[in-house]
This record gives sequence, structure tokens and C-alpha cells, in this order.
Amino acid sequence: MTKQTNTQTNRQMATWIWYPGDFEIRLHEKMSVKRLARGVMYPAYWRLDRHYSNIKFRYTYDLPQEETIKVVAEGTFSLYIDGKDNYRAGDAVITLPAGCHEIMVSVFNDLEAPALYIEGPNVKTDTSWEVTSYQNEWKQAGAWTFDSLENSPSHFQLAVTQQEPISKELHEGYELLDFGRETFGYLRFYQLEGSGMVHIFYGESLEEALSAEECYSLDRFNAAEAIGRMVEGVYTLHDAKAFRYVWIQADPGVNWQRVSMLYEYLPVSYQSSFECSDSKLNEIYDMSLYTLHLNTREFFIDGIKRDRWVWSGDAYQSFLMNYYSFFDLDVTRRTLIALRGKDPLVMHCNTILDYSLYWFVSLYDYYQFTGDLDFIKQYYDRAATLMDFCLRQRNAEGLLEGRPQDWVFVDWADFENTGAVSTIQILLVRSLEAMSVFAGLLSDPVASDLYGALAEEIKEKTIRLFWDDEKKGLLHHRIEGVTQPILTKHASIFALTYGYLNQEQRDSVIQNVMLNPDVAEIRTPYMRFHELAVLCESGQHEHVLEEMLSYWGGMLELGATTFWEEYDPNNSNVTHYSMYGVTYGKSLCHAWGASPIYLIGKYILGVMPVSAGYETYLVQPNLGGLKHMKGTVPTKKGQVTVEMDFSKIRVEGTHGIGTLSFTSVELPSCSEADIKDLGLGKYEVIIEPGKSYLIRYKNKE
Amino acid sequence: MTKQTNTQTNRQMATWIWYPGDFEIRLHEKMSVKRLARGVMYPAYWRLDRHYSNIKFRYTYDLPQEETIKVVAEGTFSLYIDGKDNYRAGDAVITLPAGCHEIMVSVFNDLEAPALYIEGPNVKTDTSWEVTSYQNEWKQAGAWTFDSLENSPSHFQLAVTQQEPISKELHEGYELLDFGRETFGYLRFYQLEGSGMVHIFYGESLEEALSAEECYSLDRFNAAEAIGRMVEGVYTLHDAKAFRYVWIQADPGVNWQRVSMLYEYLPVSYQSSFECSDSKLNEIYDMSLYTLHLNTREFFIDGIKRDRWVWSGDAYQSFLMNYYSFFDLDVTRRTLIALRGKDPLVMHCNTILDYSLYWFVSLYDYYQFTGDLDFIKQYYDRAATLMDFCLRQRNAEGLLEGRPQDWVFVDWADFENTGAVSTIQILLVRSLEAMSVFAGLLSDPVASDLYGALAEEIKEKTIRLFWDDEKKGLLHHRIEGVTQPILTKHASIFALTYGYLNQEQRDSVIQNVMLNPDVAEIRTPYMRFHELAVLCESGQHEHVLEEMLSYWGGMLELGATTFWEEYDPNNSNVTHYSMYGVTYGKSLCHAWGASPIYLIGKYILGVMPVSAGYETYLVQPNLGGLKHMKGTVPTKKGQVTVEMDFSKIRVEGTHGIGTLSFTSVELPSCSEADIKDLGLGKYEVIIEPGKSYLIRYKNKE
Repeated sequence: MTKQTNTQTNRQMATWIWYPGDFEIRLHEKMSVKRLARGVMYPAYWRLDRHYSNIKFRYTYDLPQEETIKVVAEGTFSLYIDGKDNYRAGDAVITLPAGCHEIMVSVFNDLEAPALYIEGPNVKTDTSWEVTSYQNEWKQAGAWTFDSLENSPSHFQLAVTQQEPISKELHEGYELLDFGRETFGYLRFYQLEGSGMVHIFYGESLEEALSAEECYSLDRFNAAEAIGRMVEGVYTLHDAKAFRYVWIQADPGVNWQRVSMLYEYLPVSYQSSFECSDSKLNEIYDMSLYTLHLNTREFFIDGIKRDRWVWSGDAYQSFLMNYYSFFDLDVTRRTLIALRGKDPLVMHCNTILDYSLYWFVSLYDYYQFTGDLDFIKQYYDRAATLMDFCLRQRNAEGLLEGRPQDWVFVDWADFENTGAVSTIQILLVRSLEAMSVFAGLLSDPVASDLYGALAEEIKEKTIRLFWDDEKKGLLHHRIEGVTQPILTKHASIFALTYGYLNQEQRDSVIQNVMLNPDVAEIRTPYMRFHELAVLCESGQHEHVLEEMLSYWGGMLELGATTFWEEYDPNNSNVTHYSMYGVTYGKSLCHAWGASPIYLIGKYILGVMPVSAGYETYLVQPNLGGLKHMKGTVPTKKGQVTVEMDFSKIRVEGTHGIGTLSFTSVELPSCSEADIKDLGLGKYEVIIEPGKSYLIRYKNKE
Repeated sequence: MTKQTNTQTNRQMATWIWYPGDFEIRLHEKMSVKRLARGVMYPAYWRLDRHYSNIKFRYTYDLPQEETIKVVAEGTFSLYIDGKDNYRAGDAVITLPAGCHEIMVSVFNDLEAPALYIEGPNVKTDTSWEVTSYQNEWKQAGAWTFDSLENSPSHFQLAVTQQEPISKELHEGYELLDFGRETFGYLRFYQLEGSGMVHIFYGESLEEALSAEECYSLDRFNAAEAIGRMVEGVYTLHDAKAFRYVWIQADPGVNWQRVSMLYEYLPVSYQSSFECSDSKLNEIYDMSLYTLHLNTREFFIDGIKRDRWVWSGDAYQSFLMNYYSFFDLDVTRRTLIALRGKDPLVMHCNTILDYSLYWFVSLYDYYQFTGDLDFIKQYYDRAATLMDFCLRQRNAEGLLEGRPQDWVFVDWADFENTGAVSTIQILLVRSLEAMSVFAGLLSDPVASDLYGALAEEIKEKTIRLFWDDEKKGLLHHRIEGVTQPILTKHASIFALTYGYLNQEQRDSVIQNVMLNPDVAEIRTPYMRFHELAVLCESGQHEHVLEEMLSYWGGMLELGATTFWEEYDPNNSNVTHYSMYGVTYGKSLCHAWGASPIYLIGKYILGVMPVSAGYETYLVQPNLGGLKHMKGTVPTKKGQVTVEMDFSKIRVEGTHGIGTLSFTSVELPSCSEADIKDLGLGKYEVIIEPGKSYLIRYKNKE
């Protein structure tokens, strides 16, 4: 609520501004209804939040002389000066009087998020403007990269580029195209002629495209109408689809010269790399990057064919993979904003209790990897109300339970999530720790202490109530004050991930739970992400690499060009493609299938932030059975490069202070730095920015 | 959440359905930005709530044989049966299988409220369908009178009819038109020719139209463009305006044959009447009806020129006037829904604390006059959350105070509304009483008792803390536990209206406050509405009639054709038209100016409901100094007719049981019924429906 006066000194570019979060929330609303099942809308089944249609911007300037500004809005606007409410202007060009004055601009737009662009010699829209939705709040205006009048927010769209099929053949007399690998975009028909209907069947697999009756995505159009819509002889279909193959059944007399497609994508830079002695692992890494890229769009989505929705649990993993590949923070922020949505909170994120909690954990990770406190500050209020909402759901014991209307997901697995589920408590503890850190950073020590104390209390209670001395692990859930005798891996995975167990408990859990064949195995790639990470945390790198080569390698061998939503080696042929009781229901390009990016970056190359924004970081490379490897991990301002074989480790970091940690069976040497001997064959080297370090050592192999 | 199965037996018409309240909320959003100040948007300055864009309908049918239905939606839709989520249809014609099945239809619309229309031999959309916004709620679908496929909700608009000017002259060489009286609508140009600009200046007064520089409403158009938009030789302007006069300045060479206007109005039926021995009072009554009608539109608005917004305090009075004139419950319900809006509650109704409370009081009145429990039931949840929001604002003493961000209005008067204002407490008590009654009617005795007890507690506390034994009335406000020595009429007015004072206090307040010339007089017509009503309640009918003839009669004498926002006989000439520091800022057609409708209907004709929906009612006619009068007051199902002079009273009611209450200085007689003698010259006659009663009596005159 503090007003700032801005003395202008010919600042930078004008940019489009809006109510913070509303560009993202409007984009999410549009995205959430793009899923089509056999051509029919299949909207997300949660409340879609909406932008404020009626907002007001303000800005105080101080000008030595009058100046003329150009005013453009997405929506209807009116501008007035110094609160003179009855003297409004709707002109596109306005002369501002000299001196210190406050401009207010009302903008209304009921379809797209209201946005404003003002360009003058000195007065220009940017994030120093404030905005209100008339709810007693003045917030810093939202903005991004819409830095010219023409490039307005409502016209935001992803990039496109032309792609050609790699083969064309006739199947049952109809054209069948193969685009070589999974892709996403708009089919294009060149020089369409004739009249009649054209039916298009899309397939992520060949079998799917050839199944006119059961393929998930299809299109149809009337050739005569389409000809009328051709631009420079090309008809481009309206909806983008996920596919590798297309089978086109046209009525006799409808002809075209050729078919291509416009690949639609978010421009990202591939900032990571990995290459090792195992060519299959290299292939898995590259295909993981492509899989993640296809699902990195307006937001991080679950899969490009299905659901094309923004799911918090899926996004949690994509965020982490992104830090080890594109390090694209714009899509990360957009996704975090869209997931949180607006008040009132009635249902959880995506209707799932755990997914509300993953949102906090994701925000915590965001801060760890980026150190971007501004963003945390801007959305702290929404975090606080979400936490209030969650905490109100605790039972008499103070544990978080699902309400009848909540989906308590945890995993697709054979267990009931009734009562207080231990995994949920652990996610809550992590969420409270995040809130405690945020509150501390935002100078609210009282809130920080409250969140911190609550985290500690629930953590202690969870370990105490769910730990089973006989099974030596955390039990699954507790109903009406009685912990049920069911042991699953899930709570252990998260308790290990977040470091909530003491050494004795850790060792016990790894032996008695994680590596215990009697405990139901994790079957979803979704939970395997966390399981494999935890196994790496426990030094099981070789086991994890083997698992990666067999599981992801298995998909490769079946001809996958992107990684799937689920893979069961026991399936055969077309049964690989079915899911949810639908023949081609499975998504063959699913973000969570790309987890090797994260596992390799964090546990094989071994790079991770220690303090926020990679100011300090750790490099703990592990060959995991490979002969050699090299790779790059992006950090906030630069990158870390690691190269390793049995006798050499080379490390270079562009920013921040790193600590290389490694083991050697012989005394290692390094001419660029001192090596710290930690005993038991463990060593450390401090990595300063801009210097290259070569360590000679001897691997245990 | 209970599902109903509907065995179809060829039911009535299909009708468009939507999420309850969302048609109204969307309409309100559009209305709230229609105000233009000198052609520039002037949107309402509170959060505009929005319809849910993504909703789902459901309906369970049981059909002996399959049937084909036609499905139309405003928005994109998909239909599926028996929860088979993956088998969706977007076809306009669908065949439903025989037997018992559940239909679900998702509809998405981000501009207008999503709506659905299904027409089949048996299966048809109506309010037996349920709808969800995906927030764990299944609500009865909203509907109104959109009973055909073509007549869809988003196309709702008021009626129009052509009106001609009564005079045309040239002023400074430009055409000046007089439409005879205040009107509202779209100007029309016939046979427009030539090129150049046309500037139009509108005036509620002649002076305003002739003030190109200061008139509130204006239009301009390019003749060449307008000619391109002519329909059958007529160009109709896009925006409707409030005016009596228009002055049209066109560039040389622009010509037209003539100008008329399309009067835009809500079709209502004038269900009341009043005629008496004073022709000026008759004129005041008729002009009040016209004033109210102009402001009775999509919603009850404050004024047609300005603000054209929906204000809760203004609506409270319009609701009451409407019960004594058009008895149009559709516009009443639309207004109540729009005012309440949606959660989260951050600011009060129209940003004003008292206006949130008027909403409850208005809902209570709605129930009293209509007995419509269904509507109360449908919006009870929103009433309950609004009450929670208000109650959370109580101070340590349990009294309701404005927060820094709240506008505590009470009245435009010279007092501060800081701390706990007594008027606010009295409105809160009435609101709590309303909630107690609603909860009781909806079979929630626990909530009913809680609200009731709280009402009682705050009422007792208010009288105790604000009553001043010396001044013998209720003081205005209390700051930090200290009641301030300021006496105003406001709290007394409402305490009298709602019957919160004992006989001794009533008498004291009337003498020492209401009729005390040392207490600051009420100056706004807004608060005069309540003041005059209370004076009638206290038997001051003659005083009130005199007041009416002088105040409203004063406007008549100045040539008013509708009643104004404010009138001060001390003003002269053009100063009558200024307000808020703006030369023509005053609204000359303001709903609250129509209060004679209410005062005459309730206190002169003397008709009012005793039990909900006029099941029983009171007729307490009072000549108030008139020689004779007759009139009609609408009741829920019919009307009550009253005729009276010094020696006769004639009463007839079409429905319900009435009680005629009157005084006579001689023993009265009636051949149609027994007369009950209450002593002290007071008598009662029971009025049965459909019978006419003639009572011979002798008035005190």
C-alpha cells in the first residue's frame, strides 16, 4: 500500500503489464480445455480460476516538463490523473502535465486478462506500476517479455516450425504418414482440391493411427470449406495434436499435393549434456530431454496426447528435471502460478490432497535452485492461505487427513489412503519447513517460528506414530488413532528424500523396506522417480543405472521415440498402449518418463545446489558402473561441467563456489587446488568459479 | 449431493439451464461497465465477480425406450452417459439408450455463462437437472424464462420501442430535440447522408444538453461509417443514454431526414394504483412509478444517467417500492444475486459495510413479501458466509466496526463513522434475525438459535451502550469503549423501523430525536425514505404528506419529469443540477426519488404483509389529511383494493386473509362482516378473499 514516486530518467523499454498471475491464470484456463478425446472436449475436472476482468493500474511520476504518451490496452480503458474520477480520458494519445502526478488507468476485459501498454519518452509501463482488483490491495504489476505494442499478452503462442514426414505409404488405399518420431502440432494440406470429407486418424503408435475406431485423436474436415481457408495454398488444421503417424481417409475426389505439419514448441535452450561409455544410456538421456521438451509448453503438462493438463504432482518432477536440462524459469513460474490459482480454496490442487502439498515443495525447490526471493514474495500470500486451508483439515491428533471430497492419491497402488496417511504427513512437514523458510526470508520471524515448530511437531509425531519396531519402517496409515499394520515404500521414500530419519532409521529403512522384496514394489514411473532418487541417495547408483537401462531401455527396444506414461515389460504388442481401460489410452510421451535427466544430472554427474541459487553447490560424481562420462548441468547464472573416468575427474563451474566430493582408493592429486582428506577414502576440493580442476584419483573399480 | 432419478412422463417445455446465479453474475459484470462519463468508461470500483467457465450438468432418466434428443449449448460441450468419461459425444443429436441412465454434460464458455438446452420427447433441460462447478457441490440448475432454443441466455436484452421527439428547434444552428420527458435508449438517425463528424450532447435538463463542454453523456460518430451501418435506412447508436434533450452538432454536409430514439425498458406490469383528492399528490405518485420503472432494468440500479450501478442500499429501497408497484420478483432476485456475488469475501458489498447488512434485510423483506422459501434455500449458503464475514469484524466488545478498508456510509451527513456505529449494530441485529428465521425455515434449529441469541445479545448491548439518559435517544458511535456524545436520527430511525425500542423509548425517541429541531435534520432523499416511513409508523401521516407535497412537489414545480437524486429548495437555476463538484453531476432520475410509492402504498393505503407471502396481511388506511383516496396494492398472488373518505372505507382482497384496522369517532357499521371493537375508537374487520367490504364510519376530521 505504499506509494512510490518515480523520478524518470529515461528508463528502459515499455512492457505490457497486468494483474500479477492473471496472464498465467487466463492461459491456464484456455489450456485446460484443449484436451479432445476423439474430437470431443474433455475439460479438466476442477474449478478453473479466472482473471479479474476489472482492474486499475496506478503510477506516480515526476516530470520536469509535460510529455505525450501513447496508451494501448487489451480491453476498454480510461485514464485519469490525481484521482479526478470524473475527468477520464479514453484517448490513445494523452499529454501528461509536468510535475508530480498520479496516473490511474482502469482496464476492463472479460475475455482476456486486461493488460496495459504505455509508451512515452519517460513514462512507460513496467513492473514499477501497481495494480488493484479493487480488493484493498495494490500489487506490483505482472509483466513478462511482451515488450512492444504489437506483441500483446493475449496473442501469446508457442513457436512453430515446419516438419516433413519421413515416409508416406498407402494403407487400405489411404495415405499413411510417418513423421519419424513423436511430435506435436498442426497438420497441413498443400493444394487441397475437390469436395468431400477428410478424416484423419492420429497415432502415437502405428497401431493407433491405423485404428480408426479407437485412436485417441482424430480430425475431420470438409474439403470445400478447408479450401476456402487455405493461406498461400496451404490448409492448416485448427487443433494441434500429439502423434507420430497419421492415416488420412478422404472421400474420392479430394486430393492434395502433400501433407506436412507445423511442429509447435516452447523455445528453450538445452543447457545440459551427458555422454558416457554406454551408448544406450546416452540415447535414454537424449530421448528424455526430447520427452521433457514436448511436455514443456505454456505450462509443464503431464502428457501431450493426454491429459494435456497441469498436474501438481507431475509438475513437481518436471520442475526438477528442468533444473537439470533447460533451466527455463518462465515456464516454471507460469506453472506454479496456474496450479495455485485463486481463492476461495474449496478443493485441493487438481482435487488431490498430496498435490496441494507438492506445490509447497515445488516452490521450495524453486527457491533452492534459483534464489529468486522476489517470486516467493509475490506469491507468499497465496502460499499462506493454501497452508491455512491444509492445516484446517487436521484431525484430533493433529494429523492431516483427506476429507470425503478429497482424492488422497499417493500413488496408483493397492492400498487404501483412508485416515491419516504417513506419506501425507511427511509432505506436510516439508511444506511447513518451506513456509518457515519463506517467512524467515520475508522478515516475519513469528510466522517462521510457528511454521517451524509445527513442522517439528508433526515430524516427531509422524515418526513416533508410524514407526513399527518389528517391521523396522514407517507404516502406511492410521485410522481413528490406530496405525494399521501395512508397510509400503512410500513414506520411507519421502522421509529419506527430505532427511527426516536418523542414521539408524535410514539404514533400517533401506534394508527392511526399500530393498525388501516382500514389500510391494513401486510400479509407476511416477513414484519410481522418487524411489530411484532415494536409492541414489543411499549409494545404490549401480542398481539405479541397471534399472534405468532395463526399464527405459526396454521402451527404446520397443521402438519408443519418447518415454511413456507407464511401461510393463510383461505386456506384449498393442497391450503396451492401453491404459485406463482404453485401447490407446496410454500416453506415449509423458513428462514423468523423462526422469533420467534428473537422476543422471543430480546423482551421476552429481551436481546440486547447497545454498539458494547455486551460490554454493556440491559436485559428487558417481560412475555407477560406467567406464567414463562427461556432462554439463545448468546453474542459475552458468553451468557446471563434470568429466570422470576411473582415474581422472575434471570439474569446472562458471559461478558460485562448488565442493567436489569423491572417493579414491589411492591418494588423489590436483595441481589447481588443495585436496581435503576427510578420511575413509573421502576427499573434497573447493571449486572456484571460472577455473578448471583436474583430479587424478583411483576409482574403486 | 443426493441424486434423483426422474421417471419421465412427458413433462413441460425444455428451458435453458446454467450454474445457479451465473447468468445474473455475468449480466451484472456487463452492466457494471456500461457507465460512460463523457464517452469514457467508468467501471464500478469493486471486484466484479465472474461466472464459472467450466461446469458440468447431470441428470438421471428412466426411459422405457430409447429416444433422440437435441443438444445445444452456449459454449463447447461434451456429453457422456453413466460416467463413461472416455466416451464423450459432441453431437447436436444423440440417441439415449432405454432404461435408467445418468447423463453428464460438460460445458465450457469463457465469455458468457455456460448454458445448456436439451430437447427430447421426454428428456429435457429444466431445474430438475443438477450442476457443479467441480467444487464438490451439485446444485439445482439455474433457469428462468429462456424456453426455446433460439432464446438463449447470453442474448438477453431489454425491450425497446420507438419514441419521437415532441419538439425540434435549431439552437446556434444545430438541431435541438426534446423528447418530452426523461427517457433512456438509443438515438436513431434516418436517411443519414454526407460525410463528416456528428457530435451529440445529451441532457436530462435543457441546460445540460446545451452545454457541450459539461454535459455528462455524449456521443460522436463518423457519418460515412454510420451510413455503412444503417439498417433499412436507419442508423441506431450503439450505447443507450439517459436524457430528455439532445443537441446535435454535425459537420456541414452531414444531413438526415429525422431523429427518433428506441426507448429501452424492462417490461413490467404496473400493478398498483393511487388516486386521491390532491391532484399534485396523484402526479407525484405517477411520476414516482415512472422514475422507478426507468431504474428497474437488468437490475435495480441507482440512476439511469449515473451510476447505472447496482448498489445494495439503493436496491433495498427499490425492492420495497417494487412490492408496492410492479411486484416484479425476477428483477428482485437478479439484483439480490448480483449484489451477493461470489466468495472469497474480501470487501463488503459495494465496499460499504452497511450495504452488506442491507443485503440480509432485503432478503428478509423478500421472504416477507413473497414467502418464496426456495430462493432463500438456494442462496442460504452465500448468506451464511457473508454473515460469517461480517461477524469476524466485531471488536472486543462484540460490536461490528468498519475495518480501515471499509466504507461505513450510514448517510451523506456531517458525522464520523469511526468505531462502533449504533446504526450498524441495529442493521446487524436485523440481519441476524433474518438469518435466524431462514435457518429455522430450513430446519437448522441449532443455527437458528445461535443467530437468534446473537441478535438478542447485540440488540440488548446496543440499547444499553448507546442509550443516553440525558438526551433520551441513541447516540451515534462508540470509540474504544467510550460512547461519544453525538446524537443523530439514524440509529433511532432503524431501531423504530425494526421495533427494537419499548413503548417508553419509542415515545422518547420520537419527541426528543425525530421531531427535535436541535438534532441535525436528514438531508438526503436516501435517508428521508426511512425517516418518513418511521414518522408514518408513529402516526405522523399528515406531516409526511405535507413533506411529500413540498419536497417532491418542489421538483414538480421546477419541471421535473422524474425524481432526482437530491433536491434542495435553496438552490436556484442550474445549481440544482450539480453534485459531487460536477456541473451536471446530479442524476435527475434516481430510484430513491420514487419513495412516495412505498410511503403511499404502505402508510396511506396502509397495506402490508403480516405473514410471509401475504398469507395474512394488514390494511390500515390513513387519509393523512386527504379528502378521499383509492388505490391498489399488489400482493403475491393478487391485489388489495382500498377506497376511503371521511365516512366510508371500501376494501377488497383477492387472496389471503386481511385485517382492516381503522379508527372511527362514531360506531362504524358493515353489512358484509362483523366489526371488532378494540376500544378507544379502534376497530377491526377481517377481510376474506374475493369479497368486497364497505364500512361506514366517521373520520376524526
